[in-house]
Amino acid sequence: MIHSGRVDVRTGVGSYPVFVGHGVARVLPGLVAERAASGRFALISDSNVSPLHGERLAEACRVSGLDPTLLSFPAGEASKTRGRWMTLTDEMLEAGLGRDSCVVAVGGGVTTDLGGFVASTYLRGIPVIQVPTSYLAMVDASVGGKTGVDVAAGKNLVGTFHPPAAVVADTELLRTLPERNRREGLVEAVKHGAVLDEGHFEAIERRCDDLLRADPDTASDVVLASIRIKADVVSKDEFEGGFRHVLNFGHTIGHALEAASEYRLGHGSAVGLGMITEAAIGERVGVTAPGTRDRLKRALDRLIDPAPPGLTLERTVAYLGQDKKVRRGRPRYVLLACVGETSRGVAWTHDVPDEVAHRALREVLDAA
Amino acid sequence: MIHSGRVDVRTGVGSYPVFVGHGVARVLPGLVAERAASGRFALISDSNVSPLHGERLAEACRVSGLDPTLLSFPAGEASKTRGRWMTLTDEMLEAGLGRDSCVVAVGGGVTTDLGGFVASTYLRGIPVIQVPTSYLAMVDASVGGKTGVDVAAGKNLVGTFHPPAAVVADTELLRTLPERNRREGLVEAVKHGAVLDEGHFEAIERRCDDLLRADPDTASDVVLASIRIKADVVSKDEFEGGFRHVLNFGHTIGHALEAASEYRLGHGSAVGLGMITEAAIGERVGVTAPGTRDRLKRALDRLIDPAPPGLTLERTVAYLGQDKKVRRGRPRYVLLACVGETSRGVAWTHDVPDEVAHRALREVLDAA
Repeated sequence: MIHSGRVDVRTGVGSYPVFVGHGVARVLPGLVAERAASGRFALISDSNVSPLHGERLAEACRVSGLDPTLLSFPAGEASKTRGRWMTLTDEMLEAGLGRDSCVVAVGGGVTTDLGGFVASTYLRGIPVIQVPTSYLAMVDASVGGKTGVDVAAGKNLVGTFHPPAAVVADTELLRTLPERNRREGLVEAVKHGAVLDEGHFEAIERRCDDLLRADPDTASDVVLASIRIKADVVSKDEFEGGFRHVLNFGHTIGHALEAASEYRLGHGSAVGLGMITEAAIGERVGVTAPGTRDRLKRALDRLIDPAPPGLTLERTVAYLGQDKKVRRGRPRYVLLACVGETSRGVAWTHDVPDEVAHRALREVLDAA
Repeated sequence: MIHSGRVDVRTGVGSYPVFVGHGVARVLPGLVAERAASGRFALISDSNVSPLHGERLAEACRVSGLDPTLLSFPAGEASKTRGRWMTLTDEMLEAGLGRDSCVVAVGGGVTTDLGGFVASTYLRGIPVIQVPTSYLAMVDASVGGKTGVDVAAGKNLVGTFHPPAAVVADTELLRTLPERNRREGLVEAVKHGAVLDEGHFEAIERRCDDLLRADPDTASDVVLASIRIKADVVSKDEFEGGFRHVLNFGHTIGHALEAASEYRLGHGSAVGLGMITEAAIGERVGVTAPGTRDRLKRALDRLIDPAPPGLTLERTVAYLGQDKKVRRGRPRYVLLACVGETSRGVAWTHDVPDEVAHRALREVLDAA
């Protein structure tokens, strides 16, 4: 079995390559040279990742004759703001980076979202090469072209669609990932299986131990399979008009839980609880096969944290109307037909009676 | 002769219509209804244009059953900032506008650039309908999809390419335009003639009196012709890879003059002086036909202000290296072959010896 590979993601105006595997970061200097005619680029990473990987990758590029400008910001979701976007932009202007430069974003989802947003608005858009260092960023954030920052009114409410020039998912970099991030990141991989590929769902369950210790070959297989699923979805629906909604499974409830917990609940755990709740909703309205909720719960139990005390139904419901998927004021839900298959609904989403959603949510919160 | 029309501008992912003519603003409610499923939209205009046109257009939409949120900001280039972009974004979030809404930007280039940037980053991008109210915005800013704001390091250094959903250029709205704005805006129309269409260049010279008093039918003819030229260029080169550079004729010098004057010199006057200077440069290096500079000067003299006292060669040269067109640290120039034809050069730009550029600039500044 070959534990690495390349996926080409089609976009409206072309395509970009995603390199996956143990050690594939060696392709980075070549990619930068190809995308940045000046050889100059900003390497953006956070205060945790910069000493672990950022500086080393910058040095590898320097040895290849390139000219990196290393930019760093304090680690954490609190940095994913318009203010930080301004600071990074101004640092790049100060360094004199022109249109013939590019951005290389090395890190988790905060870095790929923020770095992508910086690149998408710098001189009206320069290329970004995404180098995800977490499961979450590899299987989710770095593919699909979504960029963004958080504002007081909610997460990711400001941003752009800016497809990367290339994605380099080197599973060797996962070894430095804290245990909680490994667990939570794998939730999005489980989601890919749940909505579209039962075999992938089962493979993650079966190989969960190896994944949690970040065995590079197992990680490569699973990341590659997940990226193939996501790439297929975003190729078919780049700007989230319909089919791409399937990737929001678990997210209508998940985003509300995350916000209601004041982000003490991690994204993966929130989405995991959201998937379980939305399976329960689907079973209640007769869209989802009975037993799906329990099957999801078994697969996710090792990966997610329980809901923190004090996270009540009332608090969560208050955030349910604020999702970007809201249409005419009603939250919309992605519902499974069964594990591996999503119900079509209207544009792959469903309008569900509030009392059904609230009852399912109360059950899940009580059980947690 | 028919004094109105529609131009369809092709983009990488589709096309958008540009409506030009006396009274065409009547199509606005229909366009909004088509683009914003919720019927809700933000109508953005500045403190001058809002009472003149913004409120009236919002009311016309309200009568058609739509639900406008009127947003206004202080008139002037000083509002074209990231701070104002944040405020407008937050006001739209506060109003609860979702992905099924849109932005209608009513005003000059500041409004169309700022409103377009807000739309391009709101919930990762919602449609913008541009309603330009100045010659400059009609023939230049509203077509082509460029959006942006100014930062301390320079103008338009932060922004996106976000093609409008539609453009409504109602020449009736030009009647409220101050005399200086009429003059300066027409410079960009002269530029379209200078780079690609001698007949258009001559028509503007011939009908200059009627254009300066904003006669709606004359304005419609000239705006329509200019938009056809620009639409043809951006259809061929959406992201400014090559041919679109021809639209930067006059702008390498023009942007430097504008910045060196601390923006006391208006954009049109700066570009006009830039066109004359770049024609002089072209004649000196043997690319541009002799006499072109004088011909441009005759056509532009009625439209542009002279360079303000204190605008020296030394000050201007200091800003010459800071243009987005800079490659590997050298400014690039678009040079005419003659009126109506641009020299191909390398990607439609030329590298010119500094001493030639500086001598031509000194002559033009001395003559001004």
